[in-house]
Amino acid sequence: MAEEKETNKSIEEEEQVVTPWEVASGGGKIDYDKLISKFGCQKLDSNLINRVEKLTSRPPHVFLRRGVFFAHRDFNEILDSYQKGDKFYLYTGRGPSSEALHLGHLIPFMFTKYLQDAFKVPLVIQLTDDEKCMWKNLSVEESKRLARENAKDIIACGFDITRTFIFSDFGYLGGAFYENVVRVARCVSFNQVRGIFGFSPEDHIGKIGFPPVQAVPSFPTSFPHLFSGRDNLRCLIPCAIDQDPYFRMTRDVAPRIGYQKPALIESLFFPALQGESGKMSASDPNSAIYVTDSKNDIKKKVYFQIFYACMLIMFKISILDKFGFFKCPVNLHP
Amino acid sequence: MAEEKETNKSIEEEEQVVTPWEVASGGGKIDYDKLISKFGCQKLDSNLINRVEKLTSRPPHVFLRRGVFFAHRDFNEILDSYQKGDKFYLYTGRGPSSEALHLGHLIPFMFTKYLQDAFKVPLVIQLTDDEKCMWKNLSVEESKRLARENAKDIIACGFDITRTFIFSDFGYLGGAFYENVVRVARCVSFNQVRGIFGFSPEDHIGKIGFPPVQAVPSFPTSFPHLFSGRDNLRCLIPCAIDQDPYFRMTRDVAPRIGYQKPALIESLFFPALQGESGKMSASDPNSAIYVTDSKNDIKKKVYFQIFYACMLIMFKISILDKFGFFKCPVNLHP
Repeated sequence: MAEEKETNKSIEEEEQVVTPWEVASGGGKIDYDKLISKFGCQKLDSNLINRVEKLTSRPPHVFLRRGVFFAHRDFNEILDSYQKGDKFYLYTGRGPSSEALHLGHLIPFMFTKYLQDAFKVPLVIQLTDDEKCMWKNLSVEESKRLARENAKDIIACGFDITRTFIFSDFGYLGGAFYENVVRVARCVSFNQVRGIFGFSPEDHIGKIGFPPVQAVPSFPTSFPHLFSGRDNLRCLIPCAIDQDPYFRMTRDVAPRIGYQKPALIESLFFPALQGESGKMSASDPNSAIYVTDSKNDIKKKVYFQIFYACMLIMFKISILDKFGFFKCPVNLHP
Repeated sequence: MAEEKETNKSIEEEEQVVTPWEVASGGGKIDYDKLISKFGCQKLDSNLINRVEKLTSRPPHVFLRRGVFFAHRDFNEILDSYQKGDKFYLYTGRGPSSEALHLGHLIPFMFTKYLQDAFKVPLVIQLTDDEKCMWKNLSVEESKRLARENAKDIIACGFDITRTFIFSDFGYLGGAFYENVVRVARCVSFNQVRGIFGFSPEDHIGKIGFPPVQAVPSFPTSFPHLFSGRDNLRCLIPCAIDQDPYFRMTRDVAPRIGYQKPALIESLFFPALQGESGKMSASDPNSAIYVTDSKNDIKKKVYFQIFYACMLIMFKISILDKFGFFKCPVNLHP
């Protein structure tokens, strides 16, 4: 019996897949404790949340109080140095694969806005239109258009315009940014990205060469027009935990090229309308509520899910009924 | 005996290695006919050379007459369209891995200057400082410095300054150029670059992702400030034949992304001072005469090679003498 449990457990573990491009729990809920231990990040505990409250003199964001942001890497160090009077900067991003943002996409942006307001720090927002062009087989023009559309939704989150730089890779890549891409790329082998991201030899070299592009906004030298002369400014990245592989790689490389490791603060996945076994995803429009959906669209999507769930329950009841599960208990042992 | 010959032949074939980073004949001379058949390019015959003479109304360059440029891909098509009044542009380049250019490096530049003068066409020259930074483990700053130093030697070849654009990747990569890099990268798998360039899974992703960067100057859309609205302008690449793998890949991808294939005109390797089994290489300063070498330096290098060759012959004579090869013939059958 103990053996059987062990086997079931390992199958379950195998079935939970979390990469920047795929989130699947294998049926049940995502097991975030397992993710923390697999990825090697730390739990965000109440001590840290209390420190944030003290340092910012305002109540911590509801996403902190309710555990939506639940894991971190070196967030304590960011708070230590902030306490000593050192600033940091924020970096978050978006892969523009849909016309508009959905509720899941908004989580890091809403939280980043709070962090910017509370700590009064600069922010860079990367739109990886090159990534989506390569992964989703979109044309360059369409990827750039989606990046522009998504930027409008992001701007609507209300960031401090004097402290915020939004850029797309197609628009900004080059110069000091590209120099850092090369510095990172030569520190990471194909075998390593195969281990971190699950790439295979059949994958195209665009995918294989991409991770350094998402890595380098973690370094202030990638933005000489913002941070010139502040090469040691630390970076804090608010993101969903599926982006962790990129920054595990970045943190591994950083000291080898003389840079500081970025710190991370990581959120749960925003659940799909279908339930908590997957994340809200632009790949499945029925799983998501978009910021551009009308009240009526949202009603339809939610009602459909309720209707679908009811139908499923009724179907299950009819099956159970066939096997006699709803007969009076005495009949269970005829 | 026939079998033995066959075996020797196949060993010899195995030993001839020609990639953009390594040229080795395995002892004898480079077998260029084998290279042509292995790479799948065409021989540059006297008909084509005569056509060049007619079209340009000047004697063909000595490098054409003497077979230094000996192979091509679609050079005939370039001449066809030129005859109809369509222009083309030239693209050549340099990986800045040494302080100065040596005689071998000068070959494509001297020939490109002739082509520019004869056909009156624009020219782009790429300095792949990013490539050398990654392959030679140079710092970004050192690679950029070498690119600048090399640019001076290149300029000294006397190109038409109204028709020539010299750029380094660190300086120019971005915008339309980067868009083309992404378009090419997503058409080529790791398995393909492994086959074409011999990369291995232990190689870093900088190397693996680089080939599209050398590919895209073949497309006029990579230079909107030069060729805006002339998206179908054909490109002719004069280079040494070791660069062929890059452009085999480029020609394979071009039609899939709606672009014209570049044409090529390819040279022999400039021999090392040590002999024709290798090419003059910046990796071995004794193999090369640099444009910055003084008359005295050159004398020393050449005299050393003569001295070395004499010593080798004398050594061989003394060995042969030991075995009695210089005795009178009657003594061979004592």
